[in-house]
Amino acid sequence: MPKDLELPFDPIARAGELWRARWGDESQAGPMTTATSIMRVQQLLITQFDAIAGRHGLTFARYEALVLLAFSRGGQLSMGRIGERLMVHPTSATNIVQRLAAQGFVERVQNPKDRRGALAVITDTGRAAMEATTADLEAARFGLGMLGQDDQQALFSLLRGVRVAAGDFVDSADRPGS
Amino acid sequence: MPKDLELPFDPIARAGELWRARWGDESQAGPMTTATSIMRVQQLLITQFDAIAGRHGLTFARYEALVLLAFSRGGQLSMGRIGERLMVHPTSATNIVQRLAAQGFVERVQNPKDRRGALAVITDTGRAAMEATTADLEAARFGLGMLGQDDQQALFSLLRGVRVAAGDFVDSADRPGS
Repeated sequence: MPKDLELPFDPIARAGELWRARWGDESQAGPMTTATSIMRVQQLLITQFDAIAGRHGLTFARYEALVLLAFSRGGQLSMGRIGERLMVHPTSATNIVQRLAAQGFVERVQNPKDRRGALAVITDTGRAAMEATTADLEAARFGLGMLGQDDQQALFSLLRGVRVAAGDFVDSADRPGS
Repeated sequence: MPKDLELPFDPIARAGELWRARWGDESQAGPMTTATSIMRVQQLLITQFDAIAGRHGLTFARYEALVLLAFSRGGQLSMGRIGERLMVHPTSATNIVQRLAAQGFVERVQNPKDRRGALAVITDTGRAAMEATTADLEAARFGLGMLGQDDQQALFSLLRGVRVAAGDFVDSADRPGS
Protein backbone atom coordinates (compact mmCIF):
# COMPACT_ATOMS: atom_id res chain seq x y z
CA MET A 1 0.00 0.00 0.00
CA PRO A 2 1.55 3.33 -0.97
CA LYS A 3 1.92 5.61 2.05
CA ASP A 4 -0.25 8.33 0.53
CA LEU A 5 -3.16 5.90 0.44
CA GLU A 6 -2.66 4.77 4.03
CA LEU A 7 -5.87 5.31 5.96
CA PRO A 8 -5.88 6.62 9.51
CA PHE A 9 -8.54 4.05 10.47
CA ASP A 10 -9.41 0.44 9.71
CA PRO A 11 -11.78 0.61 6.71
CA ILE A 12 -13.05 -2.91 7.36
CA ALA A 13 -13.88 -2.18 11.00
CA ARG A 14 -15.59 1.04 9.89
CA ALA A 15 -17.62 -0.87 7.31
CA GLY A 16 -18.69 -3.17 10.14
CA GLU A 17 -19.90 -0.18 12.18
CA LEU A 18 -21.85 1.22 9.21
CA TRP A 19 -23.29 -2.23 8.56
CA ARG A 20 -24.52 -2.52 12.15
CA ALA A 21 -25.98 1.00 12.05
CA ARG A 22 -27.75 0.49 8.73
CA TRP A 23 -29.01 -3.07 9.04
CA GLY A 24 -28.99 -3.25 12.82
CA ASP A 25 -27.99 -6.88 12.66
CA GLU A 26 -24.96 -7.60 14.81
CA SER A 27 -24.85 -11.22 13.70
CA GLN A 28 -24.11 -10.24 10.09
CA ALA A 29 -21.39 -7.65 10.71
CA GLY A 30 -19.04 -10.40 11.97
CA PRO A 31 -19.15 -12.65 8.87
CA MET A 32 -19.01 -9.58 6.57
CA THR A 33 -15.93 -8.07 8.22
CA THR A 34 -14.18 -11.45 8.53
CA ALA A 35 -14.83 -12.35 4.88
CA THR A 36 -13.63 -8.90 3.79
CA SER A 37 -10.48 -9.35 5.92
CA ILE A 38 -9.70 -12.65 4.17
CA MET A 39 -10.04 -10.89 0.79
CA ARG A 40 -7.82 -8.04 1.90
CA VAL A 41 -5.04 -10.18 3.42
CA GLN A 42 -5.01 -12.33 0.27
CA GLN A 43 -4.59 -9.11 -1.75
CA LEU A 44 -1.68 -7.97 0.47
CA LEU A 45 0.03 -11.39 0.25
CA ILE A 46 -0.37 -11.91 -3.51
CA THR A 47 0.99 -8.41 -4.21
CA GLN A 48 4.06 -9.25 -2.12
CA PHE A 49 4.46 -12.77 -3.57
CA ASP A 50 4.09 -11.61 -7.18
CA ALA A 51 6.78 -8.97 -6.57
CA ILE A 52 9.14 -11.62 -5.11
CA ALA A 53 8.43 -14.14 -7.91
CA GLY A 54 8.85 -11.32 -10.44
CA ARG A 55 12.53 -10.98 -9.50
CA HIS A 56 12.96 -14.45 -11.01
CA GLY A 57 10.75 -13.97 -14.07
CA LEU A 58 7.74 -15.62 -12.45
CA THR A 59 4.32 -14.83 -11.02
CA PHE A 60 3.22 -16.59 -7.84
CA ALA A 61 0.83 -18.76 -9.89
CA ARG A 62 3.65 -19.90 -12.19
CA TYR A 63 5.92 -20.44 -9.17
CA GLU A 64 3.26 -22.69 -7.60
CA ALA A 65 3.15 -24.79 -10.78
CA LEU A 66 6.95 -25.17 -10.72
CA VAL A 67 6.87 -26.25 -7.05
CA LEU A 68 4.22 -28.81 -7.88
CA LEU A 69 6.27 -30.23 -10.78
CA ALA A 70 9.50 -30.25 -8.73
CA PHE A 71 7.75 -32.33 -6.07
CA SER A 72 6.28 -34.79 -8.62
CA ARG A 73 7.79 -38.10 -9.71
CA GLY A 74 10.08 -37.45 -12.69
CA GLY A 75 9.34 -33.73 -12.37
CA GLN A 76 6.34 -34.14 -14.69
CA LEU A 77 2.54 -34.00 -14.58
CA SER A 78 -0.39 -33.94 -17.00
CA MET A 79 -2.32 -30.67 -17.53
CA GLY A 80 -5.37 -32.15 -15.81
CA ARG A 81 -3.36 -33.10 -12.75
CA ILE A 82 -1.75 -29.65 -12.56
CA GLY A 83 -5.17 -27.96 -12.62
CA GLU A 84 -6.50 -30.39 -10.01
CA ARG A 85 -3.60 -29.95 -7.60
CA LEU A 86 -3.38 -26.17 -8.03
CA MET A 87 -7.17 -26.08 -7.75
CA VAL A 88 -7.53 -23.94 -10.88
CA HIS A 89 -9.55 -24.37 -14.06
CA PRO A 90 -7.87 -26.62 -16.70
CA THR A 91 -7.71 -23.58 -19.04
CA SER A 92 -5.73 -21.66 -16.41
CA ALA A 93 -3.38 -24.62 -15.96
CA THR A 94 -2.80 -24.73 -19.73
CA ASN A 95 -2.09 -20.97 -19.83
CA ILE A 96 0.37 -21.23 -16.94
CA VAL A 97 2.23 -24.13 -18.58
CA GLN A 98 2.32 -22.37 -21.98
CA ARG A 99 3.90 -19.34 -20.38
CA LEU A 100 6.43 -21.46 -18.45
CA ALA A 101 7.28 -23.37 -21.66
CA ALA A 102 7.86 -20.10 -23.55
CA GLN A 103 10.29 -19.13 -20.78
CA GLY A 104 12.12 -22.47 -20.95
CA PHE A 105 11.12 -23.35 -17.37
CA VAL A 106 9.14 -26.42 -18.50
CA GLU A 107 9.06 -28.61 -21.60
CA ARG A 108 5.91 -30.15 -23.01
CA VAL A 109 6.15 -33.79 -24.03
CA GLN A 110 3.50 -36.19 -25.29
CA ASN A 111 1.74 -38.17 -22.59
CA PRO A 112 2.48 -41.88 -23.25
CA LYS A 113 -0.84 -42.75 -21.56
CA ASP A 114 -2.93 -40.24 -23.57
CA ARG A 115 -2.01 -39.60 -27.22
CA ARG A 116 -3.91 -36.29 -27.32
CA GLY A 117 -2.64 -35.12 -23.93
CA ALA A 118 0.60 -33.42 -22.94
CA LEU A 119 2.85 -33.69 -19.92
CA ALA A 120 4.73 -30.72 -18.48
CA VAL A 121 8.30 -31.51 -17.38
CA ILE A 122 10.30 -29.06 -15.27
CA THR A 123 13.70 -28.06 -16.72
CA ASP A 124 16.95 -27.31 -14.87
CA THR A 125 16.41 -23.57 -15.36
CA GLY A 126 12.85 -24.02 -14.08
CA ARG A 127 14.17 -25.73 -10.94
CA ALA A 128 16.71 -22.94 -10.45
CA ALA A 129 14.03 -20.21 -10.76
CA MET A 130 11.81 -22.15 -8.36
CA GLU A 131 14.60 -22.59 -5.77
CA ALA A 132 15.59 -18.92 -5.97
CA THR A 133 11.98 -17.80 -5.52
CA THR A 134 11.52 -20.20 -2.62
CA ALA A 135 14.60 -18.78 -0.87
CA ASP A 136 13.21 -15.25 -1.22
CA LEU A 137 9.72 -16.25 -0.04
CA GLU A 138 11.24 -18.00 2.96
CA ALA A 139 13.35 -14.93 3.73
CA ALA A 140 10.06 -12.96 3.68
CA ARG A 141 8.48 -15.70 5.84
CA PHE A 142 5.64 -15.87 3.31
CA GLY A 143 4.44 -12.46 4.44
CA LEU A 144 3.40 -13.86 7.82
CA GLY A 145 6.48 -13.28 9.96
CA MET A 146 4.48 -11.00 12.25
CA LEU A 147 2.54 -14.00 13.58
CA GLY A 148 4.08 -16.27 16.20
CA GLN A 149 3.96 -20.02 15.67
CA ASP A 150 0.80 -20.43 17.80
CA ASP A 151 -1.03 -17.72 15.87
CA GLN A 152 0.11 -19.25 12.54
CA GLN A 153 -1.28 -22.58 13.64
CA ALA A 154 -4.52 -21.05 14.94
CA LEU A 155 -5.01 -19.23 11.64
CA PHE A 156 -4.32 -22.39 9.61
CA SER A 157 -6.82 -24.38 11.72
CA LEU A 158 -9.61 -21.80 11.45
CA LEU A 159 -9.15 -21.60 7.67
CA ARG A 160 -9.02 -25.39 7.46
CA GLY A 161 -12.47 -25.46 9.08
CA VAL A 162 -13.75 -23.20 6.30
CA ARG A 163 -12.11 -25.38 3.62
CA VAL A 164 -13.51 -28.64 5.02
CA ALA A 165 -17.04 -27.19 5.30
CA ALA A 166 -16.81 -25.79 1.75
CA GLY A 167 -16.01 -29.31 0.45
CA ASP A 168 -12.52 -28.29 -0.67
CA PHE A 169 -11.29 -31.81 0.05
CA VAL A 170 -12.56 -34.88 1.86
CA ASP A 171 -10.88 -35.14 5.21
CA SER A 172 -10.65 -38.87 5.97
CA ALA A 173 -10.59 -38.04 9.69
CA ASP A 174 -13.96 -36.29 9.27
CA ARG A 175 -15.53 -39.02 7.16
CA PRO A 176 -18.36 -40.90 8.89
CA GLY A 177 -17.38 -44.44 9.87
CA SER A 178 -13.65 -43.93 9.50
CA MET B 1 -15.19 -27.21 -6.48
CA PRO B 2 -16.77 -29.82 -8.77
CA LYS B 3 -17.17 -33.14 -6.99
CA ASP B 4 -15.01 -35.00 -9.52
CA LEU B 5 -12.09 -32.79 -8.57
CA GLU B 6 -12.56 -33.34 -4.86
CA LEU B 7 -9.34 -34.65 -3.39
CA PRO B 8 -9.31 -37.40 -0.77
CA PHE B 9 -6.62 -35.53 1.21
CA ASP B 10 -5.76 -31.94 2.12
CA PRO B 11 -3.43 -30.77 -0.67
CA ILE B 12 -2.12 -27.90 1.46
CA ALA B 13 -1.26 -30.16 4.40
CA ARG B 14 0.41 -32.56 1.96
CA ALA B 15 2.43 -29.71 0.45
CA GLY B 16 3.55 -28.89 4.00
CA GLU B 17 4.78 -32.47 4.49
CA LEU B 18 6.69 -32.42 1.19
CA TRP B 19 8.10 -29.03 2.12
CA ARG B 20 9.41 -30.32 5.45
CA ALA B 21 10.86 -33.44 3.80
CA ARG B 22 12.57 -31.54 1.02
CA TRP B 23 13.85 -28.44 2.82
CA GLY B 24 13.91 -29.93 6.31
CA ASP B 25 12.88 -26.62 7.80
CA GLU B 26 9.90 -26.96 10.08
CA SER B 27 9.72 -23.22 10.73
CA GLN B 28 8.95 -22.50 7.05
CA ALA B 29 6.24 -25.10 6.47
CA GLY B 30 3.92 -23.20 8.86
CA PRO B 31 3.98 -19.83 7.08
CA MET B 32 3.82 -21.55 3.67
CA THR B 33 0.76 -23.65 4.50
CA THR B 34 -0.98 -20.76 6.29
CA ALA B 35 -0.36 -18.33 3.41
CA THR B 36 -1.59 -20.94 0.92
CA SER B 37 -4.71 -21.49 3.05
CA ILE B 38 -5.50 -17.75 2.96
CA MET B 39 -5.20 -17.82 -0.86
CA ARG B 40 -7.41 -20.87 -1.10
CA VAL B 41 -10.17 -19.65 1.21
CA GLN B 42 -10.22 -16.32 -0.65
CA GLN B 43 -10.67 -18.31 -3.88
CA LEU B 44 -13.55 -20.32 -2.36
CA LEU B 45 -15.27 -17.18 -1.04
CA ILE B 46 -14.90 -15.03 -4.16
CA THR B 47 -16.27 -17.87 -6.34
CA GLN B 48 -19.32 -18.06 -4.07
CA PHE B 49 -19.73 -14.25 -3.80
CA ASP B 50 -19.38 -13.70 -7.56
CA ALA B 51 -22.07 -16.34 -8.16
CA ILE B 52 -24.41 -14.62 -5.66
CA ALA B 53 -23.73 -11.12 -7.05
CA GLY B 54 -24.17 -12.53 -10.57
CA ARG B 55 -27.84 -13.26 -9.83
CA HIS B 56 -28.29 -9.48 -9.64
CA GLY B 57 -26.10 -8.54 -12.63
CA LEU B 58 -23.08 -7.77 -10.44
CA THR B 59 -19.65 -9.10 -9.56
CA PHE B 60 -18.52 -8.93 -5.94
CA ALA B 61 -16.15 -6.06 -6.82
CA ARG B 62 -18.99 -4.02 -8.35
CA TYR B 63 -21.22 -4.90 -5.39
CA GLU B 64 -18.55 -3.58 -3.01
CA ALA B 65 -18.46 -0.30 -4.93
CA LEU B 66 -22.26 0.02 -4.67
CA VAL B 67 -22.15 -0.66 -0.90
CA LEU B 68 -19.51 2.03 -0.53
CA LEU B 69 -21.60 4.56 -2.48
CA ALA B 70 -24.78 3.65 -0.61
CA PHE B 71 -23.00 4.34 2.69
CA SER B 72 -21.58 7.69 1.49
CA ARG B 73 -23.10 11.11 2.00
CA GLY B 74 -25.41 11.86 -0.94
CA GLY B 75 -24.67 8.37 -2.31
CA GLN B 76 -21.71 9.81 -4.22
CA LEU B 77 -17.91 9.66 -4.22
CA SER B 78 -15.00 10.68 -6.46
CA MET B 79 -13.08 8.01 -8.39
CA GLY B 80 -10.01 8.57 -6.21
CA ARG B 81 -11.99 8.08 -3.04
CA ILE B 82 -13.60 4.90 -4.38
CA GLY B 83 -10.19 3.43 -5.22
CA GLU B 84 -8.82 4.44 -1.83
CA ARG B 85 -11.69 2.95 0.16
CA LEU B 86 -11.92 -0.24 -1.91
CA MET B 87 -8.10 -0.41 -1.72
CA VAL B 88 -7.80 -0.94 -5.48
CA HIS B 89 -5.80 0.88 -8.15
CA PRO B 90 -7.52 4.05 -9.51
CA THR B 91 -7.71 2.36 -12.95
CA SER B 92 -9.66 -0.53 -11.43
CA ALA B 93 -12.00 1.90 -9.69
CA THR B 94 -12.62 3.67 -13.01
CA ASN B 95 -13.33 0.36 -14.77
CA ILE B 96 -15.74 -0.71 -12.04
CA VAL B 97 -17.63 2.60 -12.21
CA GLN B 98 -17.74 2.54 -16.04
CA ARG B 99 -19.32 -0.90 -15.94
CA LEU B 100 -21.82 0.14 -13.24
CA ALA B 101 -22.70 3.27 -15.27
CA ALA B 102 -23.30 1.17 -18.41
CA GLN B 103 -25.70 -0.94 -16.33
CA GLY B 104 -27.53 2.12 -14.98
CA PHE B 105 -26.51 1.33 -11.39
CA VAL B 106 -24.54 4.58 -11.04
CA GLU B 107 -24.49 7.92 -12.85
CA ARG B 108 -21.36 9.93 -13.45
CA VAL B 109 -21.61 13.65 -12.74
CA GLN B 110 -19.00 16.38 -12.83
CA ASN B 111 -17.20 16.95 -9.54
CA PRO B 112 -17.96 20.56 -8.48
CA LYS B 113 -14.62 20.61 -6.60
CA ASP B 114 -12.55 19.27 -9.52
CA ARG B 115 -13.49 20.34 -13.08
CA ARG B 116 -11.60 17.43 -14.66
CA GLY B 117 -12.84 14.87 -12.14
CA ALA B 118 -16.07 12.89 -11.98
CA LEU B 119 -18.28 11.74 -9.15
CA ALA B 120 -20.14 8.45 -9.17
CA VAL B 121 -23.69 8.64 -7.79
CA ILE B 122 -25.67 5.50 -6.98
CA THR B 123 -29.08 5.25 -8.71
CA ASP B 124 -32.30 3.73 -7.37
CA THR B 125 -31.77 0.59 -9.44
CA GLY B 126 -28.20 0.45 -8.13
CA ARG B 127 -29.50 0.57 -4.57
CA ALA B 128 -32.03 -2.13 -5.34
CA ALA B 129 -29.36 -4.44 -6.84
CA MET B 130 -27.11 -3.77 -3.85
CA GLU B 131 -29.87 -4.53 -1.33
CA ALA B 132 -30.87 -7.73 -3.14
CA THR B 133 -27.25 -8.93 -3.26
CA THR B 134 -26.77 -8.06 0.41
CA ALA B 135 -29.82 -10.11 1.38
CA ASP B 136 -28.44 -13.13 -0.52
CA LEU B 137 -24.94 -12.73 0.95
CA GLU B 138 -26.45 -12.50 4.43
CA ALA B 139 -28.53 -15.60 3.79
CA ALA B 140 -25.25 -17.33 2.85
CA ARG B 141 -23.65 -15.82 5.96
CA PHE B 142 -20.84 -14.52 3.74
CA GLY B 143 -19.62 -18.08 3.23
CA LEU B 144 -18.56 -18.32 6.87
CA GLY B 145 -21.61 -19.80 8.56
CA MET B 146 -19.59 -22.86 9.58
CA LEU B 147 -17.66 -20.74 12.08
CA GLY B 148 -19.18 -19.88 15.46
CA GLN B 149 -19.03 -16.28 16.65
CA ASP B 150 -15.86 -16.85 18.72
CA ASP B 151 -14.05 -18.42 15.75
CA GLN B 152 -15.22 -15.58 13.47
CA GLN B 153 -13.82 -13.07 15.93
CA ALA B 154 -10.55 -15.02 16.37
CA LEU B 155 -10.10 -15.19 12.60
CA PHE B 156 -10.81 -11.47 12.20
CA SER B 157 -8.29 -10.61 14.96
CA LEU B 158 -5.50 -12.80 13.53
CA LEU B 159 -6.01 -11.29 10.07
CA ARG B 160 -6.12 -7.82 11.59
CA GLY B 161 -2.63 -8.45 13.01
CA VAL B 162 -1.40 -9.25 9.51
CA ARG B 163 -3.06 -6.11 8.10
CA VAL B 164 -1.65 -3.80 10.79
CA ALA B 165 1.89 -5.22 10.37
CA ALA B 166 1.62 -4.89 6.57
CA GLY B 167 0.81 -1.18 6.99
CA ASP B 168 -2.68 -1.60 5.57
CA PHE B 169 -3.90 1.24 7.77
CA VAL B 170 -2.61 3.19 10.73
CA ASP B 171 -4.27 1.95 13.87
CA SER B 172 -4.45 4.94 16.21
CA ALA B 173 -4.46 2.54 19.17
CA ASP B 174 -1.11 1.16 17.96
CA ARG B 175 0.43 4.56 17.26
CA PRO B 176 3.32 5.47 19.58
CA GLY B 177 2.43 8.20 22.06
CA SER B 178 -1.34 7.90 21.55
